[in-house]
Amino acid sequence: MQINAVDFFYAAMPVVTLDADGSQDALLVRVRSADGFEGWGECEASPLVSIAAFVTPRSHGVCQPVSASVIGETVESAADITRLSENMRRNSMDLLQAAHTWSGVEMALWDLLGKRLELPVWQLLGYQHNVSKTPYASLLFGATPEETYQRGREAVESGYSAVKFGWGGFGSGTLDADRAQLQAAREGIRSAQLMVDAGQIWGEDVEAAAARIPLLEEVTALWLEEPFSPYAYLAHAELARRSPQVALAGGEASHNPEMAKNLIRFGGIKYVQIDTGRVGGIGASKDIADFAAGEGVIYVNHSFTSHLALSASLHSFAGHESSVLCEFPAALSPLAKAVTVDPLLRDREGKVGAPNAAGLGVEVNLDGVSEYLREVEIRVDGSVLTAAPALLGRGE
Amino acid sequence: MQINAVDFFYAAMPVVTLDADGSQDALLVRVRSADGFEGWGECEASPLVSIAAFVTPRSHGVCQPVSASVIGETVESAADITRLSENMRRNSMDLLQAAHTWSGVEMALWDLLGKRLELPVWQLLGYQHNVSKTPYASLLFGATPEETYQRGREAVESGYSAVKFGWGGFGSGTLDADRAQLQAAREGIRSAQLMVDAGQIWGEDVEAAAARIPLLEEVTALWLEEPFSPYAYLAHAELARRSPQVALAGGEASHNPEMAKNLIRFGGIKYVQIDTGRVGGIGASKDIADFAAGEGVIYVNHSFTSHLALSASLHSFAGHESSVLCEFPAALSPLAKAVTVDPLLRDREGKVGAPNAAGLGVEVNLDGVSEYLREVEIRVDGSVLTAAPALLGRGE
Repeated sequence: MQINAVDFFYAAMPVVTLDADGSQDALLVRVRSADGFEGWGECEASPLVSIAAFVTPRSHGVCQPVSASVIGETVESAADITRLSENMRRNSMDLLQAAHTWSGVEMALWDLLGKRLELPVWQLLGYQHNVSKTPYASLLFGATPEETYQRGREAVESGYSAVKFGWGGFGSGTLDADRAQLQAAREGIRSAQLMVDAGQIWGEDVEAAAARIPLLEEVTALWLEEPFSPYAYLAHAELARRSPQVALAGGEASHNPEMAKNLIRFGGIKYVQIDTGRVGGIGASKDIADFAAGEGVIYVNHSFTSHLALSASLHSFAGHESSVLCEFPAALSPLAKAVTVDPLLRDREGKVGAPNAAGLGVEVNLDGVSEYLREVEIRVDGSVLTAAPALLGRGE
Repeated sequence: MQINAVDFFYAAMPVVTLDADGSQDALLVRVRSADGFEGWGECEASPLVSIAAFVTPRSHGVCQPVSASVIGETVESAADITRLSENMRRNSMDLLQAAHTWSGVEMALWDLLGKRLELPVWQLLGYQHNVSKTPYASLLFGATPEETYQRGREAVESGYSAVKFGWGGFGSGTLDADRAQLQAAREGIRSAQLMVDAGQIWGEDVEAAAARIPLLEEVTALWLEEPFSPYAYLAHAELARRSPQVALAGGEASHNPEMAKNLIRFGGIKYVQIDTGRVGGIGASKDIADFAAGEGVIYVNHSFTSHLALSASLHSFAGHESSVLCEFPAALSPLAKAVTVDPLLRDREGKVGAPNAAGLGVEVNLDGVSEYLREVEIRVDGSVLTAAPALLGRGE
């Protein structure tokens, strides 16, 4: 199949707040082949900038737009997608945003190939089994402990056996305030598994993080996520040494496989969390999942957007039995819910797996997101950059 | 001073080729204060994408446009610039391109502050001395060894005592082809110091790189630059172990200080090369220079664009006496030459130093680049994103 069109759809809630809720906007990518197949993907973070990275004029030989590595190329097999990813990394070496743009394009290529070959992506990736995961509800701390308690209680009452809380003011105020939030979370979710996400709040400050470890032990937290900058390997390693019970988790900021592998090698994390919409797509995610398994580190998806992105994440590590958990965004914006015709559902055992239908196995609902679409027009010297014709709206 | 305007000027050569010549386009940044001062900076790589990162609508609390961290802020001291940089890294955590955009803005803030306080930036940074450096001519390998020889000969005849060659086909063909290029370079530059830049050509392939070490020893190369991906620490460390004579250099891809420090810590490089226009600006560069000095690693600037960017680079490590070399782009495009009224010149000893005039000490020649300016217009839902009014051309 020759790839002859890549179209972007930027959707956003009418009001985008300063909350850490990543589902307030979305960048959907549709890839079409000359013989009439189409695939869909989703880029995480800053839609306008990711679109610009696709259409920008080139700066030099290794600072080319992402479009240069996909339009007109041929995809017949998984190896072709890997080849295009490698070309993109070389051609767009100096274009920092390229990895985020490519992530959505690459997902769409897998979806396209799966539909063409009538196989689910997890099989295209070479996995022998599709192992369902226990979803954990991913929630933000409430403004008050009471609100946190309430959110936790609702999560377990709707059937979750694992819940993660994060962000809010956690880690930036007093230890007492953090303890109150953690205790409220524990009480709200009762005996469910509890994880805590610090959102890089301590930078590289090991002491600030270490002061919270006893509080996390009190509530038997499974992991502490992103205590530091994703490059602060020594801080991670030192905290890991000082936290024998509460494991460290991280990796969502990785924009290539090596970043995640280095956090494992040098940072001592025990759970590596990958956002398929940032890291370079499904192939990059699987590369990390395979590496992590070899290191005895557990791969978990990072997903806080639509179920299109969630499906891509689940395919990426579907075959790894040691990965028993998956992040499940439990409080999506109306926009993120509208992206797919049907959501991924928990099965009778309460687990979630990658769909077994062809491609990513989810149907995008373009009508559903139409009310959220934002028209983007980028002109240089008066010319509309039309490498992605759908920039101007619905793309038809 | 309150910062009340940040304007971008995107300039490009009429034809941008696939050569590795980073001077084919430029993104200049002008920052103005409410009390009438102005400062200038330059972002490296992909002007359109970096502009988009300044004006994009926010995605959520830690994916805000770069503009959110500077417009309306107050700058009275060096500490204020550091504070704004820290705010930007938090506010734009999930906006990958933000570091490149910020680099130019941050440079301009130092220039502005220096002009206001009537001090050169190197003094604002706390350096006691401004130590001039021996410039090395930074050249691309020719298409043939003869062409490489000629370029090298011209460089030494025009007074350079150190020359770096890179890119072209180096490293991707046969060993004999590489040897011929290296021998031609050595013959062309006679007894001058020789450095070689591989431009990440070997990915993570240690054997491919190691096969070239004897060839580099034959021509007594000082360093081998960027043999691998900037995240391939283990490959760097292994090659460093196998190359006792030819040092490894790298770091230009760093988009934050931690990336560069990790390449030093874990990769075994002996020269760390920082592009002030990518890494987050002058403050980030100095942070790395100070760290490198403590580790016995030599800091060198990476500069392949205008003398505005070169000046910012030189201020960043002006006070470090162990850094005796500086990269000096010796074959700039007409556009890059046009950016400043006067170029930085070698002194009577053949050295180059940071200017001692106020701020960055170079004057931007907006008239000179006017013929190269590209008009950029970015609209979302029909509204022009005018946070940077000069996007529409000359900015007046």
